Amino acid sequence: MDSVRTLARILSRIEDGDRDALKDLKPGTARVIGLTGAPGVGKSTVTGALTSQLRKAGQRVGVLAIDPSSPFSGGALLGDRVRMQQHATDDGVFIRSMASRGHLGGLAAVTPQAVRALDAHGFDVILIETVGVGQAEVEVAAQADSVLVLTAPGLGDAIQAAKAGILETADLFVVNKADKPEAQQTVRDLRNMLALGRWDGRWKPPVITTVGTDSTGIEEVAGKLSDHWNWLNESGELSRRRLNRARSEILAMAKGILENRIPGERLDELARSVADGSLDPFTAAGELTGA
Amino acid sequence: MDSVRTLARILSRIEDGDRDALKDLKPGTARVIGLTGAPGVGKSTVTGALTSQLRKAGQRVGVLAIDPSSPFSGGALLGDRVRMQQHATDDGVFIRSMASRGHLGGLAAVTPQAVRALDAHGFDVILIETVGVGQAEVEVAAQADSVLVLTAPGLGDAIQAAKAGILETADLFVVNKADKPEAQQTVRDLRNMLALGRWDGRWKPPVITTVGTDSTGIEEVAGKLSDHWNWLNESGELSRRRLNRARSEILAMAKGILENRIPGERLDELARSVADGSLDPFTAAGELTGA
Repeated sequence: MDSVRTLARILSRIEDGDRDALKDLKPGTARVIGLTGAPGVGKSTVTGALTSQLRKAGQRVGVLAIDPSSPFSGGALLGDRVRMQQHATDDGVFIRSMASRGHLGGLAAVTPQAVRALDAHGFDVILIETVGVGQAEVEVAAQADSVLVLTAPGLGDAIQAAKAGILETADLFVVNKADKPEAQQTVRDLRNMLALGRWDGRWKPPVITTVGTDSTGIEEVAGKLSDHWNWLNESGELSRRRLNRARSEILAMAKGILENRIPGERLDELARSVADGSLDPFTAAGELTGA
Repeated sequence: MDSVRTLARILSRIEDGDRDALKDLKPGTARVIGLTGAPGVGKSTVTGALTSQLRKAGQRVGVLAIDPSSPFSGGALLGDRVRMQQHATDDGVFIRSMASRGHLGGLAAVTPQAVRALDAHGFDVILIETVGVGQAEVEVAAQADSVLVLTAPGLGDAIQAAKAGILETADLFVVNKADKPEAQQTVRDLRNMLALGRWDGRWKPPVITTVGTDSTGIEEVAGKLSDHWNWLNESGELSRRRLNRARSEILAMAKGILENRIPGERLDELARSVADGSLDPFTAAGELTGA
């Protein structure tokens, strides 16, 4: 429990933008699974069921719940996660809702740092759960080794997903609430869309049906995630993804540092001159950055 | 015609990111109207009809067609604009499709610069036409003094618009293709949504129906745009909007300048160290920015 308390403290420091929070953390061996989907598809239920499944296999599981749309969500999200309460007394499960309170680089920076912290604390699997509503969430999903996109019948999600670019980031599609009659149509829609892609030498995302509330199909989900993990290692894709991730992470932070150096008051002065036409914006930007 | 050629040259330099393109341009007195909507609502038709209407009133009109989704649109967009061809021989109308070929700060920077160039060349009205599909387009619309959001019946646009935040940026709603039977439903949907807002002391966006192909309702659109222009001037909102715009414009450019200074090769090296766990990302970002 002491280790859990230390971890919780490190995550709070990360949220607060403490630059030393990650110092002296040794990398572990966790695989990172992103789980995303529109509101109402059953993300918490599936996350809970998948956590149980992984626990049965003896894996320590860390869950990060990220809500890009509400930077101050704090513990609020977690409150609803009734399904996760079954894991509340299990030392092998750590659950945390993450916010990005004015963090340098936003969620694009805060998520990989939290992943780093959990990895260093010896978790075998880290689940990043995000609400799938747009670009912010695609970015968060891109922090994972495997991305599971959750849909449910009758929500028109398949098309929404395609639009938001989620389709390209998915490694695994899960159609939850598969006991509903329209589920097979959703599966067909997804398979038809996937049939349009070219997969030679690439991983073709499987489409799996689940009923999260009674764990139907969850074992298959865990199995396909293992298959994907093996593929990532054998194909060399894991190193490529992690290098790209490190690159994005550093870049997001570096941009944050640079933007913080722009002096706000001087910007306001220059804006007035540009607005009244006495200064052109290039000269203003140049002056602001010492160019 | 010499002035037109000079203007075209300045716009090309802006697209190419030439920092001196705006030097020595004196501000004019143009009002800037943003016109946005989903594909298929009839943007080009309405832009053409509105241009004719403004010409009747003796106004010189500059049209900027911006396509945020395709940075290399170049003249392609313009090719389709059959309706605009009626203005091809009119010296009082200038039409240009804008791209943002790797421009410093992207479209958020390139659009206001083009507006600046047209303003300096004595146009009375500048129409910015963009495809309304998301955040990029909301940003472009934010460059205008008045934002006209165009919808058409049966596209489910009202709800789409609400989601994308377009609703909050609209000063005028135009339901085009009003000869279709479902048009009145679209008008009702929009009015119901507007009824939920609080407008004390603020401009409440009117909802106007048009048939762009025969110019029905276009005179009313021009009239309401004049009303909005008067309101902007009397309420002080015009100065506020233009100051905010200048601020965003400078900030976008300043960020672009700063990001360009991040050395790509060094970033790649640091990313490798972060990916293999030998370096933490904060230290890497710090080193990259000399922090």
